[in-house]
Amino acid sequence: MAVLSILTPVLAAVLCLVIGFMLMRSQQTETTSTTQGKTERASKGDFRPWVDEDLQDDTEVTEKEDEDGDWVDSNEEEDCQHVPYSPPRYPEETMVEKSRDFYTLMNQRRSVRFISPEPVPREVIDNVILTAGTAPSGAHTEPWTFIVVSDPETKHKIRQIVEEEEEVNYRQRMGDKWVNDLARLKTNWIKEYLDIAPYLLLIFKQTYGILPNGKKKTHYYNEISVSISCGILLAALQNVGLVTVTSTPLNCGPQLRLLFRRPVNEKLLMLLPVGYPASEATVPDLARKPLDDIVVYI
Amino acid sequence: MAVLSILTPVLAAVLCLVIGFMLMRSQQTETTSTTQGKTERASKGDFRPWVDEDLQDDTEVTEKEDEDGDWVDSNEEEDCQHVPYSPPRYPEETMVEKSRDFYTLMNQRRSVRFISPEPVPREVIDNVILTAGTAPSGAHTEPWTFIVVSDPETKHKIRQIVEEEEEVNYRQRMGDKWVNDLARLKTNWIKEYLDIAPYLLLIFKQTYGILPNGKKKTHYYNEISVSISCGILLAALQNVGLVTVTSTPLNCGPQLRLLFRRPVNEKLLMLLPVGYPASEATVPDLARKPLDDIVVYI
Repeated sequence: MAVLSILTPVLAAVLCLVIGFMLMRSQQTETTSTTQGKTERASKGDFRPWVDEDLQDDTEVTEKEDEDGDWVDSNEEEDCQHVPYSPPRYPEETMVEKSRDFYTLMNQRRSVRFISPEPVPREVIDNVILTAGTAPSGAHTEPWTFIVVSDPETKHKIRQIVEEEEEVNYRQRMGDKWVNDLARLKTNWIKEYLDIAPYLLLIFKQTYGILPNGKKKTHYYNEISVSISCGILLAALQNVGLVTVTSTPLNCGPQLRLLFRRPVNEKLLMLLPVGYPASEATVPDLARKPLDDIVVYI
Repeated sequence: MAVLSILTPVLAAVLCLVIGFMLMRSQQTETTSTTQGKTERASKGDFRPWVDEDLQDDTEVTEKEDEDGDWVDSNEEEDCQHVPYSPPRYPEETMVEKSRDFYTLMNQRRSVRFISPEPVPREVIDNVILTAGTAPSGAHTEPWTFIVVSDPETKHKIRQIVEEEEEVNYRQRMGDKWVNDLARLKTNWIKEYLDIAPYLLLIFKQTYGILPNGKKKTHYYNEISVSISCGILLAALQNVGLVTVTSTPLNCGPQLRLLFRRPVNEKLLMLLPVGYPASEATVPDLARKPLDDIVVYI
């Protein structure tokens, strides 16, 4: 008992330390609360035996990180009148032929970084963007903004921002793994095509909208929607014989958003230089996976 | 001192409880460590003045949540020989005409949930998927798997899984906001088309690959890549007169992955019922945004 008495202040001190440590910890936890909060909710929500760590998909509602909400499949089913829908129907042989032709066309598409400075009719770009705008989107929010830059000075500013950031990425931010992968990919941060291409397309996703009453309106699955729209845009470019290279300039989003004075709900998803291929254009001699490697019939 | 002596066992007990609580907490933290670790790394990385909360984009390297890495723009620039690239070039008037025609075609696309049970030639589906496989992808990883289901029993299983989960979503998981939005969208969880459509396409994204040495290979920007591929797939379907409705079945990913025995690196991104439109098909009488609302020329 006497020993215990002597130990009491020590115990009290230890208790204080432990409590202090806990408080620090819980503060730390708070700084990461957004992410962790979601994960905790996730684990609370996951009451089903089949949802374990390995099984969790991004389709888990509880796991969606960046979106404010989720995409219902009723992406265009607004509260409005329904009208009959009867698109053209082709005979089977025509369908097969058309599907083969479209595959042949799209299979010729390549990412090209040697772009000709020749001008491209503005009307073509208009139609390409209109086509991209036909993409489905979560709850028909159409959460995309296309910035088309042909002004040489602005193109050069974009190039400066992109190259500066890319250089920083390569040199400082990335781990060995990143740098090794890049070495293999023979990429560097010089992006001449950003000056040369007649058009630079910057595609922003609108992460939320603003209602007339000033409140935020959730844009379900905005990133997937805008990426689908980009897929259709690539098809439209290929259809007219124009080329591009799909790029997501790391870390440049905020600076480019400021350059174009876009609102805070808009975030850069993609930057596409667009034009004719240069006469000396080359592409890496790559193959695509054969059908059997990408499809399973059941 | 006597009082303290009496309190000693109490203090010891409190200390035990506190330590026990801490251990529990740190275990909890460990289960969320993947997410939290990333966020911590993120805050350490953000040393630039222009990166504040408002300005942070998803293009921020440090903010990528789900990806193991990031998409370089050199998506097809592998360490291999370069070959000349000279796709067909059209006169300007032809380009304008082609761009207009493709826009007209794609502008007729609608999300359709009234699908005819009539069979569709398998060769058409093959070509549509081959076309989707021409999409660009981060570092040319081609991170997509297309499961095509025509077996009625499997289709019915999919429907059961989707409807069960959707009902749970509607009833239990979502907040008022979600339910209100859905009410406006007039959606419910009955998905008859999952039984009726001749084909169900399940599109999985491969979040990482496995190298010959068994190590994981990062799939940069897999979700964006697969979404772009889906955009091209939608264009290919529209081109042959087939319809679908873009859906991301909430929470069904894990169950559907198990149903098809897909590996753990594959996560469901989209589920598309595919077929001819039913003769009585209707679509909501929606408008698309005009060009001026989606484009800014500079």
